[in-house]
Amino acid sequence: MVIVGGGVVGATAAWSATRQGATVLLVDARDPGRATDAGAGIVSPETELRDTTPNHLLAAAATRFYPVLVDALAADGAGDTGYAPCGKLVVARTDEEAGWIGGYLALLRDPERAAAPADAASLHEITPGDAREQFPPLGDVTAAFVSEAGARVDGQRLERALLDAASACGLTIEHRPVATLDDVPAADAVIVAGGAWSPALVPGLDVRPQRGQIVHLGFDDPTCEQWPVVAPLAHHYLLAFPGRVVVGATREDDVGFAPVLTAAGQRQVLDDALTTAPGLADAPVLEWRVGLRPVATRGYPYLGAVPGHDRLFVATGHGASGLTYGPWSGAVVAELALGTISAGDRAALAPFAP
Amino acid sequence: MVIVGGGVVGATAAWSATRQGATVLLVDARDPGRATDAGAGIVSPETELRDTTPNHLLAAAATRFYPVLVDALAADGAGDTGYAPCGKLVVARTDEEAGWIGGYLALLRDPERAAAPADAASLHEITPGDAREQFPPLGDVTAAFVSEAGARVDGQRLERALLDAASACGLTIEHRPVATLDDVPAADAVIVAGGAWSPALVPGLDVRPQRGQIVHLGFDDPTCEQWPVVAPLAHHYLLAFPGRVVVGATREDDVGFAPVLTAAGQRQVLDDALTTAPGLADAPVLEWRVGLRPVATRGYPYLGAVPGHDRLFVATGHGASGLTYGPWSGAVVAELALGTISAGDRAALAPFAP
Amino acid sequence: MVIVGGGVVGATAAWSATRQGATVLLVDARDPGRATDAGAGIVSPETELRDTTPNHLLAAAATRFYPVLVDALAADGAGDTGYAPCGKLVVARTDEEAGWIGGYLALLRDPERAAAPADAASLHEITPGDAREQFPPLGDVTAAFVSEAGARVDGQRLERALLDAASACGLTIEHRPVATLDDVPAADAVIVAGGAWSPALVPGLDVRPQRGQIVHLGFDDPTCEQWPVVAPLAHHYLLAFPGRVVVGATREDDVGFAPVLTAAGQRQVLDDALTTAPGLADAPVLEWRVGLRPVATRGYPYLGAVPGHDRLFVATGHGASGLTYGPWSGAVVAELALGTISAGDRAALAPFAP
Amino acid sequence: MVIVGGGVVGATAAWSATRQGATVLLVDARDPGRATDAGAGIVSPETELRDTTPNHLLAAAATRFYPVLVDALAADGAGDTGYAPCGKLVVARTDEEAGWIGGYLALLRDPERAAAPADAASLHEITPGDAREQFPPLGDVTAAFVSEAGARVDGQRLERALLDAASACGLTIEHRPVATLDDVPAADAVIVAGGAWSPALVPGLDVRPQRGQIVHLGFDDPTCEQWPVVAPLAHHYLLAFPGRVVVGATREDDVGFAPVLTAAGQRQVLDDALTTAPGLADAPVLEWRVGLRPVATRGYPYLGAVPGHDRLFVATGHGASGLTYGPWSGAVVAELALGTISAGDRAALAPFAP
Repeated sequence: MVIVGGGVVGATAAWSATRQGATVLLVDARDPGRATDAGAGIVSPETELRDTTPNHLLAAAATRFYPVLVDALAADGAGDTGYAPCGKLVVARTDEEAGWIGGYLALLRDPERAAAPADAASLHEITPGDAREQFPPLGDVTAAFVSEAGARVDGQRLERALLDAASACGLTIEHRPVATLDDVPAADAVIVAGGAWSPALVPGLDVRPQRGQIVHLGFDDPTCEQWPVVAPLAHHYLLAFPGRVVVGATREDDVGFAPVLTAAGQRQVLDDALTTAPGLADAPVLEWRVGLRPVATRGYPYLGAVPGHDRLFVATGHGASGLTYGPWSGAVVAELALGTISAGDRAALAPFAP
Repeated sequence: MVIVGGGVVGATAAWSATRQGATVLLVDARDPGRATDAGAGIVSPETELRDTTPNHLLAAAATRFYPVLVDALAADGAGDTGYAPCGKLVVARTDEEAGWIGGYLALLRDPERAAAPADAASLHEITPGDAREQFPPLGDVTAAFVSEAGARVDGQRLERALLDAASACGLTIEHRPVATLDDVPAADAVIVAGGAWSPALVPGLDVRPQRGQIVHLGFDDPTCEQWPVVAPLAHHYLLAFPGRVVVGATREDDVGFAPVLTAAGQRQVLDDALTTAPGLADAPVLEWRVGLRPVATRGYPYLGAVPGHDRLFVATGHGASGLTYGPWSGAVVAELALGTISAGDRAALAPFAP
Repeated sequence: MVIVGGGVVGATAAWSATRQGATVLLVDARDPGRATDAGAGIVSPETELRDTTPNHLLAAAATRFYPVLVDALAADGAGDTGYAPCGKLVVARTDEEAGWIGGYLALLRDPERAAAPADAASLHEITPGDAREQFPPLGDVTAAFVSEAGARVDGQRLERALLDAASACGLTIEHRPVATLDDVPAADAVIVAGGAWSPALVPGLDVRPQRGQIVHLGFDDPTCEQWPVVAPLAHHYLLAFPGRVVVGATREDDVGFAPVLTAAGQRQVLDDALTTAPGLADAPVLEWRVGLRPVATRGYPYLGAVPGHDRLFVATGHGASGLTYGPWSGAVVAELALGTISAGDRAALAPFAP
Repeated sequence: MVIVGGGVVGATAAWSATRQGATVLLVDARDPGRATDAGAGIVSPETELRDTTPNHLLAAAATRFYPVLVDALAADGAGDTGYAPCGKLVVARTDEEAGWIGGYLALLRDPERAAAPADAASLHEITPGDAREQFPPLGDVTAAFVSEAGARVDGQRLERALLDAASACGLTIEHRPVATLDDVPAADAVIVAGGAWSPALVPGLDVRPQRGQIVHLGFDDPTCEQWPVVAPLAHHYLLAFPGRVVVGATREDDVGFAPVLTAAGQRQVLDDALTTAPGLADAPVLEWRVGLRPVATRGYPYLGAVPGHDRLFVATGHGASGLTYGPWSGAVVAELALGTISAGDRAALAPFAP
């Protein structure tokens, strides 16, 4: 099997396939701007709402799959993935926004509306004072709720752990550009997991790059690795890792393959950061990242066999939810290619066919 | 019957009682800052969500009652109430807010969640371009939906029409202060509808004044009286009357009985106005208003007989929803005092007992 | 003598002429938007710099004339003019602005550069802390200086006092519109002091209305009548009268004869007020005013005999400096018309000929 | 001779001394945050005003020295210094600021007020339209003037060119920390040019670090290397080099030796950049720099022999003007140490004695 793309989708596909005994070559162009490298790392499908797309099937699957994956990687002795079940804190800043907190909770508690319904007891309103206690740099908050099921992950570490575990099972990795499918060796199956760059390999995919700029701020507090993900209703996310708080990201369409940081983008991210959390004003800027999310115009990913091509599969188009949905997508498309997929997963995949 | 307070609640009580043949004296202190005089005039219970209070009973009742009231006043030959079924336009300004539009619609379409469920067909998303066509001064919008059942009313005109119609049925009005209930003549029933000033007359009510500042901007466009109410998800409302656009209002707690306009309050209202609708920049300022909403700390109004007092009734505490809920509340408390209330209305009133 | 226009220029002309025994009719159209009624009231020519116009002659003359005028009015028993030699406080808000304080002081101390050079000792830098002590609502300040010679006046009161004193000397006042000079009776001399409306009466004047919006905020502090005028380097002025702080004003060209308050104008004034003086946030808004300054396109006023007309004089076009320069202009043009002008004043007037 | 510190001051001292035949060892600790590496590169003493310090002597000397230095380096065959006589454009953004343009020009044209008086003809007002033509990304401007004598330089390149030229004349460079003067070899003279770190070597200097954060934005326009330095009256500077626009810098006192970029600092720089020049919104961020300026509390540098020490000299404390004044300071202190200084330069140096 050949896998093109070594981001979180391709890496999980490689991990899944090698664990099942397949011989796998992963070709990774290491394009600057790969979404996995820049993503903030929020894993919180239980706070997503159903929309008119089948994405809720991914949300539900991801909810089940993530802890299994993290445990399996730990059992494999793969390194730290940066995953932590830290909870998620949704905050309102204005009186108008405060009115939304109750409505949002009502939707999430409704199994017909939540994308991945969580235990009702794991969702509860907290006072603004408690919110600031949980995330000390926060400024004024008018209302807040907690979702205990929220988690965060470090995309770069997760990818590293997956590839290490897969390499231990025999994965071969080549780093080189792949302009067309003629650039990869013949194989019993080819999986394209090339993110925003996938349409060059699989014509017909309506996937476009959407730029995200994101900042890592230093915060020297031993408790901060336990802080929840903060989701302001109308501003950028904040989440904490040991020694740092990450804020972002912009959503910039129609900028092409330009994984560059811009004056206006950085300003917006910092404005959002300091509006929500003025306690970060003096925080040192450790790092700026920029990535190109693969956004499917149809609103949900392409997962499955490519019609008209023999043994060609694709897994991309997860937009801003790649770190949440991508691992399951990669793993299951690999099972599809190997023919080891379960009936339930096959049914869940069906609506995402290219 | 004596009614204390001539705002929208007291005026509807007087109208209801006189139409039923009762002899009614309305005593009105005409305190500056009366909420009815300042309220923007939004009547849109169908876009409210249920919360943990019984307010949805008022929303449902108001939905049924408003058209009946307006028709009855027209049949009485009372003057214009400023009521118009103009629809309501909910708009998002950021990408994050855009994500809420679908969720909000889902809640409103769910009869278990909407406070006053409307016909699903009357709620529909529209494009940002259509939103600006419906309300031309709007700036950038990222998503929007329309509720066709939304309406607006002019509080001052509605009160005038109610009192005129009641006067034609024999209502007596006295304008003088009422410091205690000893200041009103003995009567078979006394209804206190004194808004934020009610606790002085009915000890035990936990009702406090909440200040709202609001602006009226001139807009010389013959179509503007048909424009919908605009509800940005995180900023102040805008609504149009012939020749004017009204924007507001602040929600200022803990300022006491100080119905004054302030520098920061005016700035906030104008910032909200011009952020949502930059097309209003050159609009002349016709009028600033300020009112004190009667906010019940328990989160829902006091409606019904006062325990421990013979034949004393109260109707107040509607907070920011006085123009929406107040007419039904006033009318039905009058029926309660007269003993003409229906079984259904009596049941709906029950949770609001003082 | 007939004087058209009863603002500060016309009123001083009337006062000057009647005191000299002339028989004077003042015709005042009382147009809404008269600049005198709205002006903030800063009288601080000693902080003006020379430019390429002859305005410094007015500055110097006004400096000498103002105390004389105020004393004379007091001796006449005319009422309070609101005049107070309260000093002026120039403040910088940013580091960049702080760099200007020293340069500004250097210019003002240079008799070749200052428009109306003051005693060097009356100009001195003070610390930001002292600045806040002098004007308590001030926010952060990076540098400041005081000009002890600064003063403020109440335009409406000054006009009232001038007209009262003139009436006591026999002035006749008529309030009626004056569309053309045919609307005024024949007289030995006609002085047009009609502000922005003057061009209709004296063709050839290139004077246009410039709108200014201004706010009066209540401030209940017994010391505030002694507070200095505050001039931020890059924002609107603030000045205090008993019980109130006045902030403004906008400078809006090309809006025609529209003395209306606007949404954007009010927002700008309040933003400036609260940026400079956040201590005014909760101050009640007592009053909004709007006036149309008569701005001469050539950059300096029209003062003197109108060429080609017999015995027709004009005094207008003072722009934003009307309350500062206007009294001397009015008084001296009256002397010019009466033939009682001194040689020095005649020379000072010469460059301002229409 | 031993020189401690290899920033622009130490490098020029080394260049000057080696050209005169001295044997020189330069010891450079290469501390992160060296001001020379981060400085924007404005060389425009002719737009500085005199203050109460002797800094105008440095301004005048720098004005004469810079072209000589640049020519000498060119003659030496040293590489590009990034120096260009691009002119400087001073811009006002508000009406209030516009009032300052004339006053500033008047000061600069006055030989008693300008720090380094330029030819009057080289200073002239231009229209806002012309300002935008000279610096296309500029936004709204209300007034502007040009100083043709303004220049810019690249601090890193200048230092490189100086050290290359000095090395060609026999300079020895060692990179290692210098905690005390005992760490440097005995020499006939020691010059400390250690910037903000100098007080550790020369007790008694009241010099402190002031942090500056600065951004380099890409701008792909062949003309941009000819654009003038832009100095908004109340915001950060902008200047252009081939392919880039540099904006900054913050002035942060009391942050110690912490050459870190911060969330609030980056936000302020970007806000200033985009407020003045909205045309930079989409410009890619090439680089962020941060430096610690050596600020002398007394307001002017320490230049000369250290009292009580034999043959110990110091040259530091130039604050935000190091790239402008530093080269002359370094060169002349080297001459002082060698005994080759002219009488005129000795007199100019006198007020700066430690």
